[in-house]
Amino acid sequence: MKCYIMGLGLLLTLWIAPGLAQTDQPTIKDDFKPSTLNQPGQEYPQVNSQGYARFRIMAPQADSVKVNLGLGGTILTKTEDGAWVGTTAGPLDEGFHYYHLTVDGGVFNDPGTLNFYGSVRWESGIEIPAHDQDFYALKDVPHGQVRQILFPSQSTNTSRRAFVYTPPDYDKGKKHYPVLYLQHGWGEDETAWSNQGHANLIMDNLIADGKIKPFLIVMTYGMTNEIKFGGLRNFDIKPFQTVLVDELIPYIDANFRTLADQSHRAMAGLSMGGMETKMITMANLDKFSHIGLFSGGAFSMDDVNKTPGFKEKVKLVFVSFGSRELENRGARGFWGGDPKVNADALRQAGINSVFFVSQNTAHEFLSWRRSLREFAQLLF
Amino acid sequence: MKCYIMGLGLLLTLWIAPGLAQTDQPTIKDDFKPSTLNQPGQEYPQVNSQGYARFRIMAPQADSVKVNLGLGGTILTKTEDGAWVGTTAGPLDEGFHYYHLTVDGGVFNDPGTLNFYGSVRWESGIEIPAHDQDFYALKDVPHGQVRQILFPSQSTNTSRRAFVYTPPDYDKGKKHYPVLYLQHGWGEDETAWSNQGHANLIMDNLIADGKIKPFLIVMTYGMTNEIKFGGLRNFDIKPFQTVLVDELIPYIDANFRTLADQSHRAMAGLSMGGMETKMITMANLDKFSHIGLFSGGAFSMDDVNKTPGFKEKVKLVFVSFGSRELENRGARGFWGGDPKVNADALRQAGINSVFFVSQNTAHEFLSWRRSLREFAQLLF
Repeated sequence: MKCYIMGLGLLLTLWIAPGLAQTDQPTIKDDFKPSTLNQPGQEYPQVNSQGYARFRIMAPQADSVKVNLGLGGTILTKTEDGAWVGTTAGPLDEGFHYYHLTVDGGVFNDPGTLNFYGSVRWESGIEIPAHDQDFYALKDVPHGQVRQILFPSQSTNTSRRAFVYTPPDYDKGKKHYPVLYLQHGWGEDETAWSNQGHANLIMDNLIADGKIKPFLIVMTYGMTNEIKFGGLRNFDIKPFQTVLVDELIPYIDANFRTLADQSHRAMAGLSMGGMETKMITMANLDKFSHIGLFSGGAFSMDDVNKTPGFKEKVKLVFVSFGSRELENRGARGFWGGDPKVNADALRQAGINSVFFVSQNTAHEFLSWRRSLREFAQLLF
Repeated sequence: MKCYIMGLGLLLTLWIAPGLAQTDQPTIKDDFKPSTLNQPGQEYPQVNSQGYARFRIMAPQADSVKVNLGLGGTILTKTEDGAWVGTTAGPLDEGFHYYHLTVDGGVFNDPGTLNFYGSVRWESGIEIPAHDQDFYALKDVPHGQVRQILFPSQSTNTSRRAFVYTPPDYDKGKKHYPVLYLQHGWGEDETAWSNQGHANLIMDNLIADGKIKPFLIVMTYGMTNEIKFGGLRNFDIKPFQTVLVDELIPYIDANFRTLADQSHRAMAGLSMGGMETKMITMANLDKFSHIGLFSGGAFSMDDVNKTPGFKEKVKLVFVSFGSRELENRGARGFWGGDPKVNADALRQAGINSVFFVSQNTAHEFLSWRRSLREFAQLLF
């Protein structure tokens, strides 16, 4: 999934799978290992040290099996034992990629991998080990909790689910904590930041390294508006804003030991979640002081000037992209202007404005894992 | 998956999918609705008011599509639009069923449904509404939390995952709580009791109805021994017992407000988890007072007599089965004797022994949801 931000409230969702990195490497090294996201005991898919992925799907009577990952995908070839095998044409970008199979014209998941909610369905996932993967690795450090809560929502007439990250010391004392409300992208849900994003491990590691002061993260479902493919043009933020601002925040402040004021409350989101973050924070500057847009738009001086109190109330504007997004978008330009130029303008106007680029990643989760790592260190 | 308990430490795992209930009903009612376990927006699979299931799989170029659910499964028929459709030959038992597809000889999940970990893979799931489903429904009552924790395990040299249910009032006060350690079955994992079992909703509803005193439930992975299909004959309880008794229990007692003594600690499990429960509790009667085996064996007077202190230390022995398990097993008999006769013998010997039968269910999760509901009301 790639979503390019075209401006406030308008997202053009292009269905281009993650691109293959350009390479002159002619030789594929024979050091393939099972992907870390495989189901227990599953040998395939595999990844080699160069980032090539190799697939093996059993379907003895099928006529065609294709892996929908990377531009053009990978067409598998049938072997004598009834398995379909194939290797990507080039190395994939480091990090997490969604994919699925097309088997005789039908869309299925790879039975070898764990599933991750994206593109409004549970998709297969594969992980290309990143050179900097240590920051989201499961390490022998004190671990926080990821708590599933069910909070009452009058506006939607149901109990809604959210996940709350609490830091390792939360249950040890009486301390109150700042809170980050962190949103997923289009087609994803409240499981994304823990499953694909490793938000909890990123926090555990930053806290263990003494790089941040602990805070809570709250993750809930942001597609309350029943957004369908192509429907973002008529996107109305109000239903989700009501759930988040009028229902979830009061519930969190009543049920967790929070610092329940504007200066200790942040909101960030990736892609569509960035768009939601911008709309909700601009309309609620009495509630949020720190704002993060990860591959999800930017703030211009126009935004600042049309929002009373912006300069006084906003303590951080963080905008990030994967470098491949900027490369791809560069030629066509960004609606509303170059996001880095905008970030510089805000900084020159005296606003704490930070622009971050994740190197060699696209509109995918490694960009956002890195964005969270950077953003977290600037908070509160 | 059906597992029949053959006796202590020996499980014969038979790969028979859930059976179709016998019926004379010739007319299939046309009131099919999407299963409650479908992925968002997915119309199929569907279930009607009689318990028939109807499937629809897009695979235009496939030669054969079969649904592996029920004896013999359901062979789908290709329609003009490229979809394969079919309806079960009879109604399915009420409750949750695992299944998967065979598409041109390959095993895939139904892209319409959520996935559930069983049979050592993430499987498709379908829910036949039960007449008594209210006890595990999501209702407008105070909800507890399901907390993912990562606890250090020296014996396995990693951080291991567990889920902890905390009741709605846990964060409101200073109270300390009893703890139930609750195990999944063979091929499942620590997600099963929350996802398939709705353990948290069962607890929320029992607490809201004033039927139980709140307690914690701890759920972790019980297949630390890398049990493969057919490997249970040589099952060694020690690796998991070390994780549970020497590592997890001390971690829980150090990090949650527990009543950390034998009289406030229970263990229960389903199928293989029942076998593990029996082995671990009998070897650790100084740590556990309440024992539950759900479709996972029984206690005989031989067990009692060979275990010093059993009568004094054990406050509850709860044994349950689905009625179809007893019917199916009846003719062949149970290794170690009829479990109800055994339960009666224990009661006559002065032990608090309870035998529960879930009506019209087999070796499946509705038996175990009901077992948890009954067991919870007898605890502490």
